Amino acid sequence: MGRSLPSRDKWESDFPRWFDRVLEEAEIYDYGRYPVKGMGVWMPYGFQIRRRVLDLVRRELDKRGHEEVLFPLLIPDFLLRKESEHVKGFEDEVYWVTHGGLEELDVKLALRPTSETSITYMESLWIKSYRQLPKKYYQVVSVFRYETKATRPMIRLREVTTFKEAHTLHDSFEDAERQVAEAVEVYKRIFDEMGIPYIISRRPEWDKFAGALYTIAFDTIMPDGRVLQIGTAHNLGQNFTKAFDFRIQLADESLDYLWQTSYGISDRVIATLIAIHGDDRGTVIPPSMAPIQVVIIPILAGKEEDKARVLNYAVSLKKSLEESGFRVKIDDREDVRPGAKYYYWEAKGVPLRVEVGLREVEENMVTLTRRDTLERRSAERERAIENIRELLNTIESDLKKRAWEFFKSRITRAKTVEEAKKAFESKRGIIEMPWCGKDECALKLEEELEAKTLGTPWPSEKESPGSCPVCGSMAVTIIRLAKTY
Amino acid sequence: MGRSLPSRDKWESDFPRWFDRVLEEAEIYDYGRYPVKGMGVWMPYGFQIRRRVLDLVRRELDKRGHEEVLFPLLIPDFLLRKESEHVKGFEDEVYWVTHGGLEELDVKLALRPTSETSITYMESLWIKSYRQLPKKYYQVVSVFRYETKATRPMIRLREVTTFKEAHTLHDSFEDAERQVAEAVEVYKRIFDEMGIPYIISRRPEWDKFAGALYTIAFDTIMPDGRVLQIGTAHNLGQNFTKAFDFRIQLADESLDYLWQTSYGISDRVIATLIAIHGDDRGTVIPPSMAPIQVVIIPILAGKEEDKARVLNYAVSLKKSLEESGFRVKIDDREDVRPGAKYYYWEAKGVPLRVEVGLREVEENMVTLTRRDTLERRSAERERAIENIRELLNTIESDLKKRAWEFFKSRITRAKTVEEAKKAFESKRGIIEMPWCGKDECALKLEEELEAKTLGTPWPSEKESPGSCPVCGSMAVTIIRLAKTY
Repeated sequence: MGRSLPSRDKWESDFPRWFDRVLEEAEIYDYGRYPVKGMGVWMPYGFQIRRRVLDLVRRELDKRGHEEVLFPLLIPDFLLRKESEHVKGFEDEVYWVTHGGLEELDVKLALRPTSETSITYMESLWIKSYRQLPKKYYQVVSVFRYETKATRPMIRLREVTTFKEAHTLHDSFEDAERQVAEAVEVYKRIFDEMGIPYIISRRPEWDKFAGALYTIAFDTIMPDGRVLQIGTAHNLGQNFTKAFDFRIQLADESLDYLWQTSYGISDRVIATLIAIHGDDRGTVIPPSMAPIQVVIIPILAGKEEDKARVLNYAVSLKKSLEESGFRVKIDDREDVRPGAKYYYWEAKGVPLRVEVGLREVEENMVTLTRRDTLERRSAERERAIENIRELLNTIESDLKKRAWEFFKSRITRAKTVEEAKKAFESKRGIIEMPWCGKDECALKLEEELEAKTLGTPWPSEKESPGSCPVCGSMAVTIIRLAKTY
Repeated sequence: MGRSLPSRDKWESDFPRWFDRVLEEAEIYDYGRYPVKGMGVWMPYGFQIRRRVLDLVRRELDKRGHEEVLFPLLIPDFLLRKESEHVKGFEDEVYWVTHGGLEELDVKLALRPTSETSITYMESLWIKSYRQLPKKYYQVVSVFRYETKATRPMIRLREVTTFKEAHTLHDSFEDAERQVAEAVEVYKRIFDEMGIPYIISRRPEWDKFAGALYTIAFDTIMPDGRVLQIGTAHNLGQNFTKAFDFRIQLADESLDYLWQTSYGISDRVIATLIAIHGDDRGTVIPPSMAPIQVVIIPILAGKEEDKARVLNYAVSLKKSLEESGFRVKIDDREDVRPGAKYYYWEAKGVPLRVEVGLREVEENMVTLTRRDTLERRSAERERAIENIRELLNTIESDLKKRAWEFFKSRITRAKTVEEAKKAFESKRGIIEMPWCGKDECALKLEEELEAKTLGTPWPSEKESPGSCPVCGSMAVTIIRLAKTY
């Protein structure tokens, strides 16, 4: 099957097809066959990857005092409309439940597009004292958007099934600012652990979250050079607490509305994990995130007693690997040939393959093949565990290094529109240009480059960046633009 | 707060109020304040209990080869209608999404009431060979029912947030039968681990799952003597695979429709865990399931240096308990008095409390209080870990024993309608009576006793049980009736 995938040098145009096929052939996510547009099915292997990603996300959030909760899916019309900017940003893409059985409902119910309104409402009942602050909640849920743009598996969905949304409460603007910075730290940890490169920008005013003071976003670059937003953090100010008249007495005895932040990541993180390390044979999952780190293929040929020896050898290796804490699978299917098994597990991105045949048994060896480089080597059985541990560590760090190298190679500093155009033509990615700070110049750039503004560096950079390529006045910051998903 | 709860001897009438209050005061589940009827919010402490229950459920299913998946929430009208008995059973209580943004949808979308139809449809694309069988999938999702009966937190909801539904595929009726038996074993393990008593019945024809050949159900008895269904397993036969024209070539080269089972448990399992071990002071969570097994209350009084000594002592105890694998919380809030802390953690059902004050520090002791019996005792600091381990084990087994004793005391064998009525009056619970097997006699019993048929013993009992209390003919089995939730 490896051969049926678009080759990596054709990814510029063929990456979306590569991604769709890998999801299907590696049995990660069945998309396009479920009879509702924009909604897919997590298959068992994909679900295991998702589980590990969520374990990591929960660990990092729990460690920093976030508490997991679960709110209802359905938000009544009047609740969603409480904050006017917010509802304006979402109302065109909300799914509405209008009937229960054969009855029409008195109040229309929205499938949550995000949960600021329902969570703020309940918080206003729960939080009575400043001593409870700061308060950090999160939940992992499906959210729904009636997307009018073309949908894509995991990347632009109508049911986003893995939306981790955090919602926090604070007694001051400064503490909310500190929380945004903490959110950024949490996401850095998560992406670093997964080997996903990123750049952090403050989104322009016209692209911030509906109802926020401002939005900080993480972007990555997919193998075709197009940019994908993979995480956002919003300082919501007092916009929602004012809408819900949610204020309490603070430590200094003043009565004030509370301050909020919210931040989210989604299925896109998993999409990126699957996409960025892949090649012509399928995906490559970094060992730390792989549901199966080592697959053992016993080469069963010849006499029954030889087969039994090989199988025993494989089983005993599996046992000692598991005792050392590795996640191991042995593929002993008798009706599938070794070559087909290699392809099968390569497509699924299992980082290390161990072959054992009669030769290995007799010489007390194992044959190890790295999924990322396809390098093959022998190792003594006695030192196999040690070798496998080292190899997995090397694969882990090599994957991360390669991903960051690719990412950095796709970021271009340009001084003029011409330079920017050239960079977009040759490698897409992200363009950084000097900017005077005026909206009209940014929008002009978007138009000329047929690109989207990602925003300005966060934290902001101090260096003087030259002059605005549109109006020529002195630049006050850097602006980032990209062709985005 | 303990004093504000209805006392255990009044549970017969006051249990629902006790349950509602415990969910609220122990900060488990906020119900009735979220502005959609029949939908509640899992609060952080409740969510931790839910997490542990789901960990157990997943462990038991994974161990037996079940694979976790995740299907879309929305099921199109035409898919839900594929199996006619099935849709008849659900159509009065399905929520319908009719609009996306301001547009009316071409096809109405149901919020899943259960997932047989969507799962069977995708399985028919995935399963191509008998070699893939048996196949066991499961998912943990929200399901929606537009209930017309009175709703109750966790027990009768419009959004059931913790629905674990398993769906299996087989090449023969016999293998599906074997799977139903495996499902029963899995649920027994889960309930046993949680200390939840149960009785297993085959539901009568008129109360089986819509679309099934038959339904096996687990029932438990709540503290007020009313019966709650906590798990079901269905043999679906070929009903759904026929509706989806889903057949494959089997090992003997015949072409046949596959056989299916499905089985589910829900939030009710967590409701039962919280309810059955509770008392006038709140819930009691068995140590194996408790998010916090031991709470340490440092008694901080007197001079600053004494406070520091007590706090250090508490912190060092916490550390050694954690190193021994216990889940421990230290409540060092300075603005809350010890008595209030006791009530607070008692309501939440933390199985063991450790008090340490200056006396304990000086005598190198700890004071331990069991949540279930409220017995208090001292232990040497040196032997504290050992004592705590023993006490937690004792609490665990005592809770299970008491729960089963209560359960068994509420099951009555009756020969006549009069005897049955008397038993219902004195203790509710479950009545077992001889039965001739005719539907009309069972329905007559339901009417006279104002009770519901739970069904017949599963596996069926061989002993000859006397004569039918309605028609007088020879009984062929036992029938179980109860006042149910």
